[in-house]
Amino acid sequence: MTRDANTPAIDSALLARIAGAVREDRLWQQHMELARFGATGRGGINRQALSAEEIEARGALVRRGRSLGLTPYTDAIGNLFLRLEGRDREAAPVLTGSHIDSQPTGGKFDGAFGVLAGLEAIEAFLDIGWQPRRPIEIVAWTNEEGSRFSPGMMGSAAYAGLRPVEEILAVRDSDGTSVREALEAVFAADDNIEHRALGRPCAAFLEAHIEQGPRLEATGNQVGAVLGMQGTRRFRVRVIGEEAHAGTTPESERRDALVAAARMIGALRESMHDPDDITRFTVGLFRVSPNAPSVVPAEAYFSIDLRHPDADTLAGLGDRIAGICRDHRGPCEVEVEEISRAEPVHFPDAMPRLVSEVAESIGVPHMQMFSAAGHDARQLYYFCPTGMLFVPCEKGISHNEAENAKPEDLAAGARVLAGCVATLG
Amino acid sequence: MTRDANTPAIDSALLARIAGAVREDRLWQQHMELARFGATGRGGINRQALSAEEIEARGALVRRGRSLGLTPYTDAIGNLFLRLEGRDREAAPVLTGSHIDSQPTGGKFDGAFGVLAGLEAIEAFLDIGWQPRRPIEIVAWTNEEGSRFSPGMMGSAAYAGLRPVEEILAVRDSDGTSVREALEAVFAADDNIEHRALGRPCAAFLEAHIEQGPRLEATGNQVGAVLGMQGTRRFRVRVIGEEAHAGTTPESERRDALVAAARMIGALRESMHDPDDITRFTVGLFRVSPNAPSVVPAEAYFSIDLRHPDADTLAGLGDRIAGICRDHRGPCEVEVEEISRAEPVHFPDAMPRLVSEVAESIGVPHMQMFSAAGHDARQLYYFCPTGMLFVPCEKGISHNEAENAKPEDLAAGARVLAGCVATLG
Repeated sequence: MTRDANTPAIDSALLARIAGAVREDRLWQQHMELARFGATGRGGINRQALSAEEIEARGALVRRGRSLGLTPYTDAIGNLFLRLEGRDREAAPVLTGSHIDSQPTGGKFDGAFGVLAGLEAIEAFLDIGWQPRRPIEIVAWTNEEGSRFSPGMMGSAAYAGLRPVEEILAVRDSDGTSVREALEAVFAADDNIEHRALGRPCAAFLEAHIEQGPRLEATGNQVGAVLGMQGTRRFRVRVIGEEAHAGTTPESERRDALVAAARMIGALRESMHDPDDITRFTVGLFRVSPNAPSVVPAEAYFSIDLRHPDADTLAGLGDRIAGICRDHRGPCEVEVEEISRAEPVHFPDAMPRLVSEVAESIGVPHMQMFSAAGHDARQLYYFCPTGMLFVPCEKGISHNEAENAKPEDLAAGARVLAGCVATLG
Repeated sequence: MTRDANTPAIDSALLARIAGAVREDRLWQQHMELARFGATGRGGINRQALSAEEIEARGALVRRGRSLGLTPYTDAIGNLFLRLEGRDREAAPVLTGSHIDSQPTGGKFDGAFGVLAGLEAIEAFLDIGWQPRRPIEIVAWTNEEGSRFSPGMMGSAAYAGLRPVEEILAVRDSDGTSVREALEAVFAADDNIEHRALGRPCAAFLEAHIEQGPRLEATGNQVGAVLGMQGTRRFRVRVIGEEAHAGTTPESERRDALVAAARMIGALRESMHDPDDITRFTVGLFRVSPNAPSVVPAEAYFSIDLRHPDADTLAGLGDRIAGICRDHRGPCEVEVEEISRAEPVHFPDAMPRLVSEVAESIGVPHMQMFSAAGHDARQLYYFCPTGMLFVPCEKGISHNEAENAKPEDLAAGARVLAGCVATLG
């Protein structure tokens, strides 16, 4: 692996000392303690953004941060920062973290790991008596999940200047509560926490997260150096046929929306086949109406989720979809609508390289990979040098109360994160 | 058309007199009056079997029958008979009728037409002062639809001895009410109606019904002489794959239940294609789970409704289904279950021939056809010489509040029915 000016030099001796100070038992214990806030009783977490449960979890994090000598800050959108002062107080800080909100039936590790691994890194720095040159800020971004207030990644988007704060504050949940109102409760519960401006300069952002996929587990790696995020194009296809009686209507007179949709899906699946198996093509949602055994379906409706890390490939594949659907519509009508499009993100090469080098240096098995899911790092990518590292989670299960991870994998990830933050700091 | 010993001779002069006495306005008016019982306010009917609404409709029929000099009878399952005495009181009666229960969102004509056309025939007989040799009984069979108490055709099945009465009486609706309990309310409301044995001999049963399909309307015919009923085989197919993340799981590792199901449906549709367009193959119900855009479907579930008038063809086509599903399951598992099988029914040739000859004699445009739907005539087929005649309904729409028919078509059907009953009587 070549080195360039953008890759900070690693100090193997320091990394070994830091890695040795990261404590698997403490990190696991912190996960279990945080998991009490919003615990569902079935092993999962319901700790939605700006909820009472999240407010309690936030309070616990602030208390822990202060006990470690960190200074808490917040901002207009409620992002929480816990700052370890650097030797150069004026230097732009290194940010690391993720989020502590969850899906309604989420797990203990999604988001939480990124925040707690950052705190564990700081514990390790303190335990060996090492202070970085730059300040280090552990961040919990507001409303990553987007399950209560949609869409998600609100805090990171606001911080990076990608969405106007006023627009975000006006978003309401299904009960009619606005983000602005929900934030008032958060701030009221905060214990004397200073507010800072959004978008303060930072030197880098590195987010640790469970993979939410099966690749690391399947390959026996403990850390994934994330090259970037696949781009995603999402479509909705509506096939319009005509309701007819199953017993009386001859095939020649039918406009069967389900048969047409099945043909489209078969043709799309074939067309999207990728010998390199990098393209991800999924029809996950499918509905027909009236959905009765003895009625020829009048309408079929399905989703398409298409992902690829290369922007040109993604564009080319996605642009084929409407034509393939039209070619297979038979006597039906078809409407294809693209409902969202996120271009692939490629983190600066220096970031995955740093993760790989640190992992290599301290002997953690690692691989390079793309992120399939969206993360706050997608927003920070537009703001400062940004990267991610992944740790395995059991069977790739996430957004599920059964989400699980191994203490030793979390610790390995925290050791690599700590080494990276120390190198960046 | 040849004549054989089983076809009663028609009397064209009598048929012309009877046809002339059938009154379109009266028949339509009777439909509108019956439609008040259980009217939904949106043009449809909710008059489920043995409900308060059906009890009221039954009372109105009994009063009308008595006003015409007919004698009402019922039996252990609540079938209602209105008997016109014949010149030979000992002769086995000719039965005609259908049912007055409806689907929860049914229409004004399904079932009702068969009963009201029978009564209109009797009005015509009375108006011209003609009395048949055999008694004529207008029948409203209990619970044809099966929407409240399942399965349907209870009254005709019990009458024909195809299902034990005790078994039927024990069936409960979704509120826990048994047929036995619901019948007690019916009998309590009956105004002094004599109970007779089930399965009393009859000379013939002829059921008039709306087509519930588009063929008569499309061909400009007012009467369909029903040759029999298509056989129907119904299947449920369960495709078992594995839930997976749409963004992370490579195609080679997926067990995508929806893709497999789409392939099966495509292959089945192709295999069931019939150049003569007689086979009816329908997948009307289709569900996937978890049915989320970013999750590879773990399971797909769909119905197959296969119909054909020829028993051997139906058997051969249906027997192919499981193999085709297995051949296209890919990495998934598939379970194919046959949930019901009804063999084709071919009415005795004399019955559709009679319908055609009467229609021809009185100048009503007619065609021969198979019934796609099930009717009480399917049960009576096993008990006595049975036939059916169809009239057009608008666009073939039925089991729907939008069900509609033309007064002149109903009158034409009633004229043919009256002529057939007169000939059989």
